[in-house]
This record gives sequence, C-alpha cells and structure tokens, in this order.
Amino acid sequence: MDTIIEFTRGIPPNKSFAFEKLSLCAKEALTNYPEKILQYAKSSGFLPLRESLAEAHKANPENIIVGTGSLQVLDSLLQSYPHGTLRVAFEEPTYDRTVIQLRRVNAELLPCPLSTSGLDISPLKAALAEGKKLDFFYVVSDFQNPTGSVMPLEKRQELVGLARDHGFYIVEDLPYRNLRYNDESIPSCYDLAPEQTCMMSSFSKLVAPGLRVGFMILPEPLVKRTAQYAEMTFINPSYVDQAMVYEFIKHGWLEEHMEFLKSLYGHRRDVMAEALEAHLRPYAEWVRPDGGFFIGSFVKQAVEAEKLMKHAQSHGLKLTDGRGFYTRGGDQFVRLPFCALEDDQIHEGIARLAETLRSYPA
Amino acid sequence: MDTIIEFTRGIPPNKSFAFEKLSLCAKEALTNYPEKILQYAKSSGFLPLRESLAEAHKANPENIIVGTGSLQVLDSLLQSYPHGTLRVAFEEPTYDRTVIQLRRVNAELLPCPLSTSGLDISPLKAALAEGKKLDFFYVVSDFQNPTGSVMPLEKRQELVGLARDHGFYIVEDLPYRNLRYNDESIPSCYDLAPEQTCMMSSFSKLVAPGLRVGFMILPEPLVKRTAQYAEMTFINPSYVDQAMVYEFIKHGWLEEHMEFLKSLYGHRRDVMAEALEAHLRPYAEWVRPDGGFFIGSFVKQAVEAEKLMKHAQSHGLKLTDGRGFYTRGGDQFVRLPFCALEDDQIHEGIARLAETLRSYPA
Repeated sequence: MDTIIEFTRGIPPNKSFAFEKLSLCAKEALTNYPEKILQYAKSSGFLPLRESLAEAHKANPENIIVGTGSLQVLDSLLQSYPHGTLRVAFEEPTYDRTVIQLRRVNAELLPCPLSTSGLDISPLKAALAEGKKLDFFYVVSDFQNPTGSVMPLEKRQELVGLARDHGFYIVEDLPYRNLRYNDESIPSCYDLAPEQTCMMSSFSKLVAPGLRVGFMILPEPLVKRTAQYAEMTFINPSYVDQAMVYEFIKHGWLEEHMEFLKSLYGHRRDVMAEALEAHLRPYAEWVRPDGGFFIGSFVKQAVEAEKLMKHAQSHGLKLTDGRGFYTRGGDQFVRLPFCALEDDQIHEGIARLAETLRSYPA
Repeated sequence: MDTIIEFTRGIPPNKSFAFEKLSLCAKEALTNYPEKILQYAKSSGFLPLRESLAEAHKANPENIIVGTGSLQVLDSLLQSYPHGTLRVAFEEPTYDRTVIQLRRVNAELLPCPLSTSGLDISPLKAALAEGKKLDFFYVVSDFQNPTGSVMPLEKRQELVGLARDHGFYIVEDLPYRNLRYNDESIPSCYDLAPEQTCMMSSFSKLVAPGLRVGFMILPEPLVKRTAQYAEMTFINPSYVDQAMVYEFIKHGWLEEHMEFLKSLYGHRRDVMAEALEAHLRPYAEWVRPDGGFFIGSFVKQAVEAEKLMKHAQSHGLKLTDGRGFYTRGGDQFVRLPFCALEDDQIHEGIARLAETLRSYPA
C-alpha cells in the first residue's frame, strides 16, 4: 500500500495561494496606511473592505461585519442572544461546525432532511403550523457542504416566502458560490430577500484560509448586537489581513485568481465525477456538483461509521465521520472533497473506496 | 475652549508603531514560509511564536494559546465551561471587558475592593470559609487597569497560597508588565505558581494593538478545552499577524522597541504625576504608578458619574464612566490614561479636571 489518501477536510491546496501578490498587498497596506491597520479599531472590520463588499453585494457597508472567518461572525450573532433561547432549522446533513455552535448556545435544533432528491422542509412547515417561532434557517444553498448540492430556485423562493410570513431570518452560507464550474448562477436567498437574510461568505476559499477573512451581511436589526458581541470578545479582528484582501481586490487580482481556481477545481471535480462513475455506482448515490469542494455520497448498504472508517484505513483511505454532519445518524454518508487532491490521488482514492465498500464486512 | 482632551481609552499613540520594521516582518514571513501562515492551522496559534514565548516564560509551548488578543483567549477559557457554572473573584475596580465576559457566561461575581491602600481579599476569604468553591481569581497584578497599582509580593504569595489550598486558578493579566518605568519587577503569580496560574499577556501595548496578538499560558488541565472552544469559534486566528510578531522578536526588535516605549511612556507618567500634584491634591487620591498606561484617581467628594462626565465635557474634557470598572458604584472613580497624550495635553487636561471638580455643582 502506498501513502494514505485523505478524503477528509475541505481545504484549498497550498499551490492555490497567490504568495507573491499577497506579499505585495501586505507591503502596500503597511506602507500606505499603517496607522489605519495597526491601531485598535471597530469590531465590524476594515471600512474600505466593507465598502468594497457593499458595492459587490448591493448592500450598505454599515450592515457588513468582517471577522476572523465567517464562522466567527455567525458565532457572534448566535451568542448575542440569551443562552438557550434560539430555535434554528437547517439542512441535514449540514456543515458540522455550525451544528456545534448551535449546540453550544443550547439552541433547539430543527433538522430538515437533505438527500440526492433535494431538501425536505416538511419538518419546518410542521413546526411553523404548530405555531412554533423560528429564529433562523441555516442553509448552504450553493454547492452545499457536505453534499455539493444546489438548492433549486423554487425552493429558495419558498424558503424566502416562509421567512417573510413567519418572521425568521435565513442564514445563507455562501463560501463556494463563486466557485461554479458550469452553468449559470441561481439568485441567492440574499438576492431574493436581503432584508430577511444574513448572507455569510469568506475569502478562505478564494484567496487563502490562513488570512481568516470572512464576513456577514446582516439585516439592520441584527447588526449592532453582533458587532457588540464581537467587540466584547476580541475588540476587533486583525485589520492587516483584511487590508491584504482589500488590496488584492483593488488590484483586480481576485477576479483573475477565481478564474485560475475554477479551472483548477473544475478539472478535479470532473476527475472525481468520472472516477465515481467508473467505480462507485454499485455502492452509493450522489449528485454531480456544479461547483464547490465536495461530492456527498450516500452509501446504499447499511454501514457503521466507525467500522467503515477503520475498514477504509486498512485500504489506505482516511475518511471523515459522516455522523458529524448529522444530529442523528449519518453512518451511511461519506463526504468526498476533491479540491486538494491530484488526479491520480482522486482516481486511486475512489477505487479504494469502492473496494472498501465491496469488501465491507457484513 | 480649544479641542476636547480625552482621558478615555488606554490606547498606544500611532507614533509608537514601528511601521517599517513591521512591514519588513510581513515580507519575510510571506516570502520565507507563506504556506505555513496562509493555510488552515491549529487554533492554538503559530508554533514558532509559541516556542519563543515558551522560552521567555519557561513554559511548554503546548500550554500556550495565542489568539486575536488575549481577551479572546480568556473568552474561550470562560466559555468552555457550561453556562452559569463559574464563580469568579476579582479586584474592584477592574478591567471592564473582563467583567462583561464574566456576566455573559452568567458567572457568580465576587468582587474584592481595591483602593489606594491596596487589595482587600476578605470577601474571598469569607466565601472560601463558607465552603464556596471558587473557579478563578482574575487579577491585573502589575500596573493595574484601571488604577495603575502594583500588587505587593506578600499579597501575591497569599493569593497563590489560597489558590493552592482551595484549588482555584489565578487568571493573571499582565499586558503592562514589561512597561515598568522605575524600580525592579516583582515576581508574578505565574512566576510563583505556574501550575496554578493562567497568565495572559499581549503584544498590543508592546508592538501594535491592530496586530491583535495576545496569548495565555495555561495549566495543563485547561489547555485542550480552551483550544477546542477557539477552534469551533473561528478555526484558527490569523497566523500572518502572529508571524509578524515572531519576526519582530527574532530580529531583536522587541527589546529595542520596549526601551523606546518605556522612555516615551515613563516621561508621560512623570508629566501626569507632576500635573496631579500641582492641581488635584485637594480633590482626589491616587497612587503614582511605576508603569503601565493609567493613574486611577479616587475623587474625595460625592459625585455622580453622569453628572461628572457632563460637567467635564463643559470644561473641554472627555472622561470614561468610572462605573464601568465596578459591579456596583464607581461614580467617584476617574481613570486617567497618560500613554497617548502629549505633555501639554496632560497638563491642560489635569488642570481642567481640577477645575471640573472645584466647580462641581453640589
């Protein structure tokens, strides 16, 4: 057996970072306006970057909070409510770290099943019909983590309608939206109803994760509470990183870099989709994603996550525990990130996964 | 009346930042090891910086967590406990943001009075005698924020003894420790009992606040829980900033820069002490601090904070609300930061404060 192949975290490959350009961005920021980025500052983030984001997303800069990654802004939003008072719905499977944050604030969780045939929001509708008040619906509508699926326009419209009628906010997490490898973009929930949507996104996948620059565009009633929570937690995020991202955008390098990334990742998506067709049809279902970092595979046979991971390990494969993306169950879910792997690793990895499932001890 | 003089936040002046050196640090880090600082990484911070801190503080790098300022690491520590389960003692007055963080986790608060005659820990002793379990004692033992006072060695020893006997941890916040302008340093609680102390400090006052690099050295049982909370909140802090601080230290520039700061701030401390002697003896008590950013003044006459601030404003002076540093009361406390003001501003400001108090409407 050669080296272990990892189908684990969704991290960009080191070769996707524009080292030299970022170094130039840091130099420009620290030379041209050092006092703006080295002093204590507002918790909501570096104003020129917020203005640039506002222009791109037709928002008011005052409604934008930039943090140490978008996950941090979500945490500030959630923590700004009294402990144990929130009720939050979400797709299941969903991004594991969000569920951990929801559990930490002791939120009531309302998962809605997501499968290869789409999102089933009947649990949400049932709760609303019972008169339950919902605070947030968390959704990764483009190239979902972990399934790779895209929510159809009609479903977005339906969700937005429910949010308006029942007075809840959609938290729309869109870190992969700009990484679309084919077809046209669908209007986001934020596009459809900005006043009802907390849209979060990040430069982690578009520039570099280590810069830790993510943001949320919030409806007006949620801005101050979130910024205040952030201020009392860390005063303000690093402005050096935010200024680097701002300079990167100002130079027009973001557009150019996204083309490079789409070409890099689009090819890897194709390679993984081919490998899956070649090896995995007998064992799993999936939807070929139009973008993002992941293909989510639903294993047909009954498997136990721990046993599966151990069995995979003996076939030279490291998998993520599917149960992390579920509040209950998830044993049969395997997330397959293609972004950081070379072609031969993808082919070999999927072949090993097929063999793992073929030989899975009954 | 000329411009308003602000005795408000304790922020370093822009002229204290080593712009060019920091720019060089960023360049070196982004050129020599970009993949180490631009990728997702461990929540506990950039290892070379942690190793450098470990050497300076005779600690294990594994016990050090570097965050977006030290306040953030404190928040992660506090939040890692179930909501509403902590009991925490502290000096009163104390750093206002810490009290806000304690209130957020619904901690039981046990303030111990601090005055010009020192810290009175009888409330702590009484609680311990009643068999109450204490989790933490938060203390700014060197050049306290907001009073400027230094805790005497005997008190540190007594506190450490109580911590050992009763199994609580001291959270020792030392951002000003290296800014001593006369006499010799006293051993910190951390020096006396590292196994009983969470020692936090920061480069905000020594390099630049905007870099947002602070740290905590934790006893082994508290490390993992704190790092995990941080990971689930923001994955990892910015490593670019941490690498800039690391390079700054590696070049020997921190030592050199601290000498510059001590000379700058020591002079300002002298100017403010002189101005206070010249104008404020009839109206207030204070202790001339041996370091740090602040002189804490206790007003002799009965004043109400809101009325005092308003009256000061009419004399061209902006004050901080003293009640922020207290859980109850604080109307008669005025924090006087000297770090960011020029000599003439200090003189004029203290003269205005004396006039504010002289003419305070009874």
